Amino acid sequence: MRVMGLDPGLRNLGWGVIDVDGTRLRHVANGVLHTDGKADLASRLLQLHVQLKAVLRAQRPDCAAVEQTFVNKDAVATLKLGHARAIALLVPAQAGLTVGEYAPNAVKKAVVGVGKAAKVQVDHMVRMQLPGVQIESPDAADALAVALCHAFHMQSSGRLEAALRAAG
Amino acid sequence: MRVMGLDPGLRNLGWGVIDVDGTRLRHVANGVLHTDGKADLASRLLQLHVQLKAVLRAQRPDCAAVEQTFVNKDAVATLKLGHARAIALLVPAQAGLTVGEYAPNAVKKAVVGVGKAAKVQVDHMVRMQLPGVQIESPDAADALAVALCHAFHMQSSGRLEAALRAAG
Repeated sequence: MRVMGLDPGLRNLGWGVIDVDGTRLRHVANGVLHTDGKADLASRLLQLHVQLKAVLRAQRPDCAAVEQTFVNKDAVATLKLGHARAIALLVPAQAGLTVGEYAPNAVKKAVVGVGKAAKVQVDHMVRMQLPGVQIESPDAADALAVALCHAFHMQSSGRLEAALRAAG
Repeated sequence: MRVMGLDPGLRNLGWGVIDVDGTRLRHVANGVLHTDGKADLASRLLQLHVQLKAVLRAQRPDCAAVEQTFVNKDAVATLKLGHARAIALLVPAQAGLTVGEYAPNAVKKAVVGVGKAAKVQVDHMVRMQLPGVQIESPDAADALAVALCHAFHMQSSGRLEAALRAAG
C-alpha cells in the first residue's frame, strides 16, 4: 500500500510518499511544489494542480491524506490556505483515491505520541521511522508525517478488524 | 465576448453567462451546481469540478469572473468557502481563460451603483439589464451580477483605452 501525505500551502505545498507493508514502512519520495507569488490566484492554483497531478502520475499512490487546516486568527491567511488545500484534496480524488483528513494535533500524536509536539520532534520521528530518508524541506517533512499518520491509522483499524474477526 | 460569472459556495455554486457586444448585453444561461452534503470534502470538491467543467464545455465563455470571499467572523465557514472558491478559479484557468476577481461591494457598486445595496436591489438590476431572463436561484442571480460587473469593467477600460488612443 503506497500512501501519499500532503501538507497544503499556496506558496509551498509539501508532499511525501511511503510504502506500507504490514507494520513495515519505507520512504519512497518527497518534495515541495512552489507557485509564483506574483501570479494571480487562479494561475497559482492551476500551477499547483498541474504539478501535483504530475507527482501523482509519477508516484502512483493507492491513497492520500491531507492535513486539516488550523483555523487561526488571521482569516485572510486561513482563506488562502483553504484555496491551496482544495487542490490537495481535489487531485487525489480526481485520480479515484480516497483522501483522509487529519488535524495537525492528530498527526503529531500519531507520529510523536503527544498532540502538542514541537516541529523539530515531528521531524526527528519522521527520520526515525524512515531510516536514511533525505527530506527536501520542513513542508515535505510535515507531508511525510501526514502519510505516517494515515499509515498508523490504517494499521490500527486493520488490527481492530482482525481482532473483531477473531472474536467471531 | 462571452463572460461567465461565478458565485462560489460548497453547497451551492451559482453560475451565469452573458454575451457582451460593445455596450449591448444579452443573457445566455444561468444555473446552480449542488454537492452532496453527506459526502467527504474531497468528493464534494470533485463534484463541483466535474459539473463546472461540463458547464464551461457547454457554454464556451471567453473569460470568467469570480466573487471574492467576504472574510467574516465564522472562520470555519470562510475556510469552506475558500475550498469551493478554489474550484471556481481553477476550472476556467484550466480552460485557458483569464479570471477576474471582484469584491462583493465592487459587484454591487457596478450593478446597482452603491456598494451597500441589498440583495433584492442587485436581483432587480440584474433583471433590468438582462430583459426576459429566467433566474434559477439567488446564487445564479449573484453569478450574473458578477458577470455584469466584469462586463462593465471591461467596457470602461476599453473606453479608457480608446480615449487614450484618441488623445494620442
